[in-house]
Amino acid sequence: MQTLTVALGDRSYPIHVGQALLGNAGLIIPHLRQAKAAIVTNTTVAALYLQEVAQPLRQAGVEVIEIILPDGEQYKDWPTLNLIFDALLRQRCERLTTLIALGGGVVGDITGFAAACYQRGVPFLQMPTSLLAQVDSSVGGKTAINHPLGKNMLGAFHQPMVVLADTDTLNTLPDRELSAGLAEVIKYGLIRDLAFLEWLERNVERLLARDPQALAEAICRSCANKAQVVAADERENGERALLNLGHTFGHAIETGVGYGQWLHGEAVAAGIMMAVELSALLGWLASNDVERIERLLLRAALPVYGAPLAVDRYVELMQHDKKVANGQLRLVLLPKLGTAQLVSGVPLGAIEQAIRRRCANA
Amino acid sequence: MQTLTVALGDRSYPIHVGQALLGNAGLIIPHLRQAKAAIVTNTTVAALYLQEVAQPLRQAGVEVIEIILPDGEQYKDWPTLNLIFDALLRQRCERLTTLIALGGGVVGDITGFAAACYQRGVPFLQMPTSLLAQVDSSVGGKTAINHPLGKNMLGAFHQPMVVLADTDTLNTLPDRELSAGLAEVIKYGLIRDLAFLEWLERNVERLLARDPQALAEAICRSCANKAQVVAADERENGERALLNLGHTFGHAIETGVGYGQWLHGEAVAAGIMMAVELSALLGWLASNDVERIERLLLRAALPVYGAPLAVDRYVELMQHDKKVANGQLRLVLLPKLGTAQLVSGVPLGAIEQAIRRRCANA
Repeated sequence: MQTLTVALGDRSYPIHVGQALLGNAGLIIPHLRQAKAAIVTNTTVAALYLQEVAQPLRQAGVEVIEIILPDGEQYKDWPTLNLIFDALLRQRCERLTTLIALGGGVVGDITGFAAACYQRGVPFLQMPTSLLAQVDSSVGGKTAINHPLGKNMLGAFHQPMVVLADTDTLNTLPDRELSAGLAEVIKYGLIRDLAFLEWLERNVERLLARDPQALAEAICRSCANKAQVVAADERENGERALLNLGHTFGHAIETGVGYGQWLHGEAVAAGIMMAVELSALLGWLASNDVERIERLLLRAALPVYGAPLAVDRYVELMQHDKKVANGQLRLVLLPKLGTAQLVSGVPLGAIEQAIRRRCANA
Repeated sequence: MQTLTVALGDRSYPIHVGQALLGNAGLIIPHLRQAKAAIVTNTTVAALYLQEVAQPLRQAGVEVIEIILPDGEQYKDWPTLNLIFDALLRQRCERLTTLIALGGGVVGDITGFAAACYQRGVPFLQMPTSLLAQVDSSVGGKTAINHPLGKNMLGAFHQPMVVLADTDTLNTLPDRELSAGLAEVIKYGLIRDLAFLEWLERNVERLLARDPQALAEAICRSCANKAQVVAADERENGERALLNLGHTFGHAIETGVGYGQWLHGEAVAAGIMMAVELSALLGWLASNDVERIERLLLRAALPVYGAPLAVDRYVELMQHDKKVANGQLRLVLLPKLGTAQLVSGVPLGAIEQAIRRRCANA
């Protein structure tokens, strides 16, 4: 087991990465404020791992409530959030009760938001079971649900007490979701860690083959990057926005085609290609950089073209982005590989051209 | 105009109390982060005061969005909150857009919660138009909506940028709501300000007659008390819970009879009498203290008996209180007039007896 720290003063917390963590109640119990916890998960993960987490806790005398949600991004919404609140109230969960998010990014985001709001805030911890959640969404305290008009539009900053990333759970992860997680991994290399990008170019096949050592390395390097950024800018007043490379385009895809059609990581991969094309149009990246990134994403079995929405529709959806300021889009672009910058005032024509280049049949 | 400060470090903010504040855009504009604001109000207040606030802002070049909710505690719920989110997204409100809560406690609580969640947090300011909101709910950053199983169960701590309490708005306040506000005013005297309690005993009729000087005095002394408590304990880890005198009983009434039947302040008044009876049963208050408080509440035209729910139902509803810890109720009681204490382990029999004494036909 390796341990990293997200340094946020009195809200600091550890990230443990390793094997056989799920059933290790000793990693959870020190973080509970009473002998009662509510595990929130989905139908798919519950069948695989819920009892592995719940039983050792119960044996240790913890009252465990199980809240099982439907599986999919389309359920990261108000009605599903209310299922959590209903269950918490019916089971008389208190301000001291800890919520445990057991699942991928959707479960982590919605559970974290429930914890932020229930009785004006209760503690929670993250047990991410997808690669995407382990390398990105479980770390840093961003919680949210979607709105029909925009992805992650309603949420809170609410930091977990601990993140337990059990790499054994990746053995049951569908190939498509493994690839989706790699999109966020590759993102860290592109925006701030060229050496990691080069490591990924050497090791992407090992990751796809689920080599435990390679996965642990990728997760730890991703979390180390994320933890540094979050510690420097918890509430996204500056640097943290750079973690959104490809996300403004990607969120437009997810919202435009309907939540749950594209996996978040898939949309991010296509969005990265749009941001990369735009960086090239501005004269920042060379055409062989574009090809190099495309090649890596393709090797990771990720899409490099966005959904076939009209270009106007992309632009309209992108206007709902949380980074919009005074009506102006602000986009994360790459001056060179391994360095990112938040740019406003990009000419609309260039944005449209980048979308057109990377949008299937638009 | 008098100005108090809520001292919360970099989240400190002023409370301005006085006449003719609503139309004074100069008090609002310095707090806006962009020339765009969304005023959230209800149908009743909109007809009276919305244009008085909106027009000077528009004349100063601020884009003003109007969001008008139905009026009543029964609308402090998810569907109404979603009306706010829908409007904010449709009108492309951004992270820099400020929400303005123009109305009573319901408008302030739901608008504050919307501001806490929209895009993970946007600035907001409070323009309370009821006595209850001016003396209590607009100050301190508690925001919430109700859940069918419990009052204020979903919410956030989110501090406003400024509170503008325009006492002119009290001229249009229905008598019943004026009295409801006095319940929270009297509360401050009971829990921490005996001199203020005595002042209220001398001046309650002036307050009911809407004497502007008396009202300003009551509002400022209430806000000064609240600001001190909030500055010492923003997130209710201790002292702040004392502001909840009568609220555990009162919330049970509001939830039990259905939101919107009793005004919050009315339920608090009956709840105060239950807490006072319980304090007497424990030997803390004398019977003439009980009569003295009852007399003051009656002079303020407030109910001194709770709704006719079964005693068991009261106790069941009270178990959902946010102050419950490890299954134990924690109640705010009065060791003597002007001093409050949070007490756990009160025998159930005594709680039931206090309810029975102060519950109509239970």
